Amino acid sequence: MMKKILETSPDGWVHFVKMSQPCIGDNVADADRLIAHLKKQIGSHSIQMDLSLISELPCIFRKADFHVLCTLFGCEKHYHLIDVQPADDYLPVYGLAIDLGTTRVALRIVDLIHQTILIETAFENPQSGIAPDVLTRIHYTDQIDGLKHLQQLIIEGINGEIAKACDSCFIHSNRIVCLSIAGNTCMTHLLLGLPPHAIIREPYIPAINKQFILPASDLNIRIHPQARMFVFPNIGSYFGGDLIAGILSLDMIHLEKTTIMVDVGTNAEVVLGNKDWMLACAGAAGPALEGGVSKIGMTAGPGAIERIQLHAGTSEFVYQTIGNKKPVGICGSGIIDLAAVLFQSGMLDIRGKFVPKYCKDRLTVIDDLMHFIVIPKDQSDTGEDLTISQADIDSLIRSKAAMYTILTTISHSVGLSLSEISTFYVAGTFGEYIDPLSAITIGMIPDLPLERYRPVGNTSLEGATRTLLSRADTESIPAIHQHITYMELNVNQEFMNQFSAAKFLPHTDRSLFPSVYELERKGGIH
Amino acid sequence: MMKKILETSPDGWVHFVKMSQPCIGDNVADADRLIAHLKKQIGSHSIQMDLSLISELPCIFRKADFHVLCTLFGCEKHYHLIDVQPADDYLPVYGLAIDLGTTRVALRIVDLIHQTILIETAFENPQSGIAPDVLTRIHYTDQIDGLKHLQQLIIEGINGEIAKACDSCFIHSNRIVCLSIAGNTCMTHLLLGLPPHAIIREPYIPAINKQFILPASDLNIRIHPQARMFVFPNIGSYFGGDLIAGILSLDMIHLEKTTIMVDVGTNAEVVLGNKDWMLACAGAAGPALEGGVSKIGMTAGPGAIERIQLHAGTSEFVYQTIGNKKPVGICGSGIIDLAAVLFQSGMLDIRGKFVPKYCKDRLTVIDDLMHFIVIPKDQSDTGEDLTISQADIDSLIRSKAAMYTILTTISHSVGLSLSEISTFYVAGTFGEYIDPLSAITIGMIPDLPLERYRPVGNTSLEGATRTLLSRADTESIPAIHQHITYMELNVNQEFMNQFSAAKFLPHTDRSLFPSVYELERKGGIH
Repeated sequence: MMKKILETSPDGWVHFVKMSQPCIGDNVADADRLIAHLKKQIGSHSIQMDLSLISELPCIFRKADFHVLCTLFGCEKHYHLIDVQPADDYLPVYGLAIDLGTTRVALRIVDLIHQTILIETAFENPQSGIAPDVLTRIHYTDQIDGLKHLQQLIIEGINGEIAKACDSCFIHSNRIVCLSIAGNTCMTHLLLGLPPHAIIREPYIPAINKQFILPASDLNIRIHPQARMFVFPNIGSYFGGDLIAGILSLDMIHLEKTTIMVDVGTNAEVVLGNKDWMLACAGAAGPALEGGVSKIGMTAGPGAIERIQLHAGTSEFVYQTIGNKKPVGICGSGIIDLAAVLFQSGMLDIRGKFVPKYCKDRLTVIDDLMHFIVIPKDQSDTGEDLTISQADIDSLIRSKAAMYTILTTISHSVGLSLSEISTFYVAGTFGEYIDPLSAITIGMIPDLPLERYRPVGNTSLEGATRTLLSRADTESIPAIHQHITYMELNVNQEFMNQFSAAKFLPHTDRSLFPSVYELERKGGIH
Repeated sequence: MMKKILETSPDGWVHFVKMSQPCIGDNVADADRLIAHLKKQIGSHSIQMDLSLISELPCIFRKADFHVLCTLFGCEKHYHLIDVQPADDYLPVYGLAIDLGTTRVALRIVDLIHQTILIETAFENPQSGIAPDVLTRIHYTDQIDGLKHLQQLIIEGINGEIAKACDSCFIHSNRIVCLSIAGNTCMTHLLLGLPPHAIIREPYIPAINKQFILPASDLNIRIHPQARMFVFPNIGSYFGGDLIAGILSLDMIHLEKTTIMVDVGTNAEVVLGNKDWMLACAGAAGPALEGGVSKIGMTAGPGAIERIQLHAGTSEFVYQTIGNKKPVGICGSGIIDLAAVLFQSGMLDIRGKFVPKYCKDRLTVIDDLMHFIVIPKDQSDTGEDLTISQADIDSLIRSKAAMYTILTTISHSVGLSLSEISTFYVAGTFGEYIDPLSAITIGMIPDLPLERYRPVGNTSLEGATRTLLSRADTESIPAIHQHITYMELNVNQEFMNQFSAAKFLPHTDRSLFPSVYELERKGGIH
């Protein structure tokens, strides 16, 4: 049994309420009495509750001498009262935060009374079994019951993970009274069973963008039967609730200084702004950065090369794999490192083409296509050479050009140079693993002092967690949603011009990457 | 198929919405688009909808070219969107009004588009099988599953009646999208499955008083799966939503002039007021007025004497029964007539005692108690004399004294004489059947010009119907609730004093009933 406490965070969802006792002169009904006290205490507009809770109040109040512990959840000052217990004899109450990713789903269980994180866990989105990418999943919904099937997969996945997580913490899942979920627009639609077709077709219209709250039981999520679920709002088809959660977690709309957040996966999503304005855009970054670029490309997993350098003395590759296994492939951060080191050593020219003079015997031709041997077969776990083709490098260059162009376009559109940005938040696993120096070297991200780059981890999960711990943070979500102007890149002419200029290593405009040419002067680049 | 119309009442719940078409420059999501249009059109604060409806919108919108027919329901400007159909191809939408009485339950199905009443029907509250009276039903809930059983009975009754009513109108019950229910506090609790114990114990606290809205599916009411149900607020344990509905139907809170409404059953409930103030109280009126007074007393039904007079020439009783059957008993209105005529003919004195000198051979002694033979056995359907005992008359006098005292107390408490009341609404079956002249003669109701008495029928059902037809009327319900001050009679000293004075025929203070003594001067009273 956890230690009982007598005070809860005034900004949280759990509140002690000591009501006046009813008498002939004060014969306010039980539910009305509690709501009047709660409204006064937390200043909400409306507080609803389910019939089943109303029916329990008379007994609880008289047992508890009108002193109770209440848990609410909601947004825009419309709250739902979910749990009421005697103030001196209560069970714990938990909330669940979910980052609903296309590939991975991360969960956190939060103790709402003590405001602590109990457990964090993650599992592969079971929809990946149908298709790894969003587009194929959406096409799958054209089949009869396809949408239902995808929805069931993710709900079963979530329910399974909740059960496992609860078991490992020795808690009962019906004590989870609220749920906050942040995901990209498509994943959110597939979870809710909303038809996603219009999302991917011009003019790209989601079924719903605004945040909303629904009974978790509507989705058969097995937690408290009256639990409420908060769904983060989307800005549009390509800018989802996960990003809103990220902005919340970094508190970007309250900052004086202009900051930028990038979240890179198959798409690159970018938000730039401060307390006065905020601009967002998203664009295809290509598969290179999720590991799909080459035969040896892979998503981060055991045996994936995540770091690679050229030993200055031996000119041999020095690398590091996930789990320190023998290498089986190379993931996003490793590919960026590789391209940087190949460029620095002269093995790639500024157009991103292999230079035979420097590559020497590392080059080989497979299926009429030039390949570069990264790891010879005697060192790999697969027993084959791990190679990267010219096409792979071309693909990476398109990705990095897209990324840089998105950054340039968004900052130029507000008359800002990238160097004026005070902090550059890099979210997600990409942010955690890439070496900013390598990314700068290939011209993927701007040539800023390294200390401005801040890997910030899973900001989506962090933002979802915030809603469970703070009413003020939850209330700020509609404000964030309002605060953002979304910029459509597909129809942006500057984007196209910039993109062409960015398809070089690091860029056609050398002056944009002084530190890279500083290296060259020192003999680092041939 | 009903005739399609192109305009709906701006004050109703059904609205045509013609949305702008989405494009790249206007990529608001489907649900958000509809809600924005609706909010603008009807000026509500918040509009929610169920997930299942959100999931249907993309398809409906594109099929209907973004021109739809929407049905909402709600209160306090928090509306729930229940039904959305193409504007040029829609099914009808209906609402259901219910007056939930202790004895009878009345229903109306309303066409929400054409704003017409389709059918009105009624059935006996199936809980009567457990106990005819409220108190015994409440005690029944002390048994295991007693509350559940009572709840099931009424819900099954309502579902059965809905099915029958829909069949007879050839409509499908799933087209009933909203439900408005007005009942006394206890019946409302029993329907909702709320524990009623505290209602009948000092300080008389209901589980909830405020109006609220819940999914009809929470009670397994078989109508549209997303239908919402509005439950009228109570003022307190003895002043329920049926009265609030009555006040709404009579528009009492908007009247300049002071009016009064009485609803008499086992309890007498009284509301007095105008647009500036409103006072309510309720008191036990005794069983006399529901027919339970005597061996021959009965609730209104076939063979019940509802009117009775003394033929001036023959001195024989002339009576009228319900259904023109041979008499089997006498109901509330008949008993009042009888007492009036007995008093007028001198057979009852001002203390309400039989006067042998005038009763002559109509008096008989049964079980040591004086009885008056109303209908001799050769005329009755039972083959036995229909008699009324001295105890029955005493009981009636207590009831009528209670009634008159309640009226006096409430009007005196605001410094008003009863004669200043412009209209005297008499609600319910009591109002429909009593002869005001008889009621004045026995001093049950004040001696006002007869034209001020207005029988108003089932105001509870009428009020519930209003919420289905008018948003403005629905929105006025919280205002009515706020507007009313409830006066506790149990703790009122004046009540006790007045009550003693009112236990005479018509009253100890003759000046209060001039018209009765006018009759006397003309020789009508001995």
